[in-house]
Amino acid sequence: MAANESTHHFITLLPNTIHSLTHSIALMADHQAPLSSNNPIRFGIIGCADIARKLARAMSLAPGVTLYAIGSRSIDKAEKFASLIGVSGTDHEIIKLYGSYDQVLEDPCVDAVYLPLPTSLHTQWAVKAANKKKHVLLEKPAALNVAELDQILEACRSNGVQFMDGTMWLHHPRTIKMKNLISHFKTFGQINFIYSTSTMSVNPDFLESNIRVKPDLDGLGALGDLGWYCIGALLWAKDYQLPTTVQAQDVTTNCTGVILSFTAAFHWDISSNNTAATIHCSFFSNTSMDLTISGSNATIHTNDFIIPYQEDSASFELSCGAMFVDLHIGWNAVPEEVSVDCELPQEALMVEEFSRLVRGVVYDGVQPNCKWPEISRKTQLVLDGVKRSIDSGCKLVQL
Amino acid sequence: MAANESTHHFITLLPNTIHSLTHSIALMADHQAPLSSNNPIRFGIIGCADIARKLARAMSLAPGVTLYAIGSRSIDKAEKFASLIGVSGTDHEIIKLYGSYDQVLEDPCVDAVYLPLPTSLHTQWAVKAANKKKHVLLEKPAALNVAELDQILEACRSNGVQFMDGTMWLHHPRTIKMKNLISHFKTFGQINFIYSTSTMSVNPDFLESNIRVKPDLDGLGALGDLGWYCIGALLWAKDYQLPTTVQAQDVTTNCTGVILSFTAAFHWDISSNNTAATIHCSFFSNTSMDLTISGSNATIHTNDFIIPYQEDSASFELSCGAMFVDLHIGWNAVPEEVSVDCELPQEALMVEEFSRLVRGVVYDGVQPNCKWPEISRKTQLVLDGVKRSIDSGCKLVQL
Repeated sequence: MAANESTHHFITLLPNTIHSLTHSIALMADHQAPLSSNNPIRFGIIGCADIARKLARAMSLAPGVTLYAIGSRSIDKAEKFASLIGVSGTDHEIIKLYGSYDQVLEDPCVDAVYLPLPTSLHTQWAVKAANKKKHVLLEKPAALNVAELDQILEACRSNGVQFMDGTMWLHHPRTIKMKNLISHFKTFGQINFIYSTSTMSVNPDFLESNIRVKPDLDGLGALGDLGWYCIGALLWAKDYQLPTTVQAQDVTTNCTGVILSFTAAFHWDISSNNTAATIHCSFFSNTSMDLTISGSNATIHTNDFIIPYQEDSASFELSCGAMFVDLHIGWNAVPEEVSVDCELPQEALMVEEFSRLVRGVVYDGVQPNCKWPEISRKTQLVLDGVKRSIDSGCKLVQL
Repeated sequence: MAANESTHHFITLLPNTIHSLTHSIALMADHQAPLSSNNPIRFGIIGCADIARKLARAMSLAPGVTLYAIGSRSIDKAEKFASLIGVSGTDHEIIKLYGSYDQVLEDPCVDAVYLPLPTSLHTQWAVKAANKKKHVLLEKPAALNVAELDQILEACRSNGVQFMDGTMWLHHPRTIKMKNLISHFKTFGQINFIYSTSTMSVNPDFLESNIRVKPDLDGLGALGDLGWYCIGALLWAKDYQLPTTVQAQDVTTNCTGVILSFTAAFHWDISSNNTAATIHCSFFSNTSMDLTISGSNATIHTNDFIIPYQEDSASFELSCGAMFVDLHIGWNAVPEEVSVDCELPQEALMVEEFSRLVRGVVYDGVQPNCKWPEISRKTQLVLDGVKRSIDSGCKLVQL
């Protein structure tokens, strides 16, 4: 303890500040808790990006999970973040605040880290975390390229820790419902076309100074920040079969070469059922997150696939066997709105799933799950393909 | 009269067979009615395709319009069609049936013709009709290429007759409402991206024998039949500015080279505000007709833009200034569903608008309207560009 006292603070949660934040954050002493599968998985957050506030709340909502430590580049920043998420120094429930990332990794009580750092820092800190036997929940895009991601995944593999990237929508029950539907061949038929967007209309300040347009921080720009979702959606729909080709179109970059908007077309060859797809990502358009999957027998539409309009339920539109009525003056049926309730927000479900896997490794001696690292790697592979196409002046790229 | 008696029949309408078909079909004698702007515009239908039933109904619904004559390649076919639309030989209201197309054009009482013929016959019959001073309502795609369309348009121009292609959705009040919205710069901002589909899942018989997949009849296949709508939608959204480039992707053809499915990407350069667009058309996917217009401040979605789900009203989804709530756990507002009532079906509104223009020419001596021929020509020009890209193995084509 003594060595740490000058650089870390114990801090406690203010009641009723963030909805439900406190309910699952139990008192954590500064020593290793006894090994028991009833113990919560203790998270350290490394880096105090805005998105980390959402994850802090998710950790408070997910059962069996505790936010245990917050590390920032200075103790002031950590304190400021703690205050933002409703933590103060006067209560009985404790979160440790550290003025460096390393101290979080040195803390033996931290089971897992969540890393919302700029993408250019992912490899360094995710590898370090894995080497310190911390399980790694890594914000998307996972890495700047697949070579960097492979270093991270290898570090996780060789240290026996779980890896997952922070793609939340994959954990929403609507996503699972849609997947069941599109996988039911008799209902849906063959998937012929997929369309996905992720756009947001940013202000001039963002274009000037946000880390997502800085070549040394998030050099992939809209491709990493927004494209990660759309590419992930295509792969998700295609059961993670890689497309055969990809071709970028209509690319806009800033003066440093960071991608601000682009469109890209994908094709899966006949061995993958000849599917085509288009994605569009932009920092210049009104917020959109469309996902349309067009099968031979049915179509699914949703326009909020990444972040649902509301937390407690989400829906999609399903059109099956659409035909025209006689004289083609209308359709035989209006598409059905399929609504799916969500008891926990998708980010809490993500944290819960990650922690379930971590618990298996920590308490039950099972191997880390391979599915999530594979999903991240395939997403990154396709993202790299789009980047190659962009860098080549929008040539068709074979994957 | 005598010369016609052996090859044409008078035929009358059965009451109550097609909804409202009879209400506007007044008795037509076999002689030129006196010139009066109160007279209905008298249509001849040339060719008895299925779609002509829809137009026959539209003519019955549109005020100031009469279905006066039906011409087919044989009198039997004309009679069969007449029976399908609820016409019999025992009532007091009369439609003339002809066993040839030429006889319709020879009939001096016919003001205008509607031509639902296979595309390869458009030039021949539309030019003939114009030369006979018949106003021309031509089913889409207008022609196989812009050179053929120019022959038609020149014939209409030199004969002083009105031309319009049969794109119905442009006449729907929803379309006008959407146009007003996307044209309001303060609300919508700049149009950055447009996405449109037209797909239908056809059966094996269609792929074998439908005229839309026959190289000698509708040689453009899905490009003409479906792509016409999507290309038209892009141009409509862009105030008929032509895109700078077009590139086809993912083309499937049958063994004779007729296009069965394709995707295409479009770009408008900086002088046209840098818009990008993607369309997808296919005979292999569940019926879809999506139109999404993505602006810097707002987004419009509709999934039934070509034929609304229902006749009496249609809607679109409007999202303006979409933001995330704090913590990005939802949106500041769910998109608004904007519903637009439609007192007459869009095809009746089209017939009404066409007839209004014809009436101007016939009774008021005004020049034929230029807007509709221009819309057709620009649509055809872009369609030609997609075709060139397809024929070149999906190269980028400058327009």
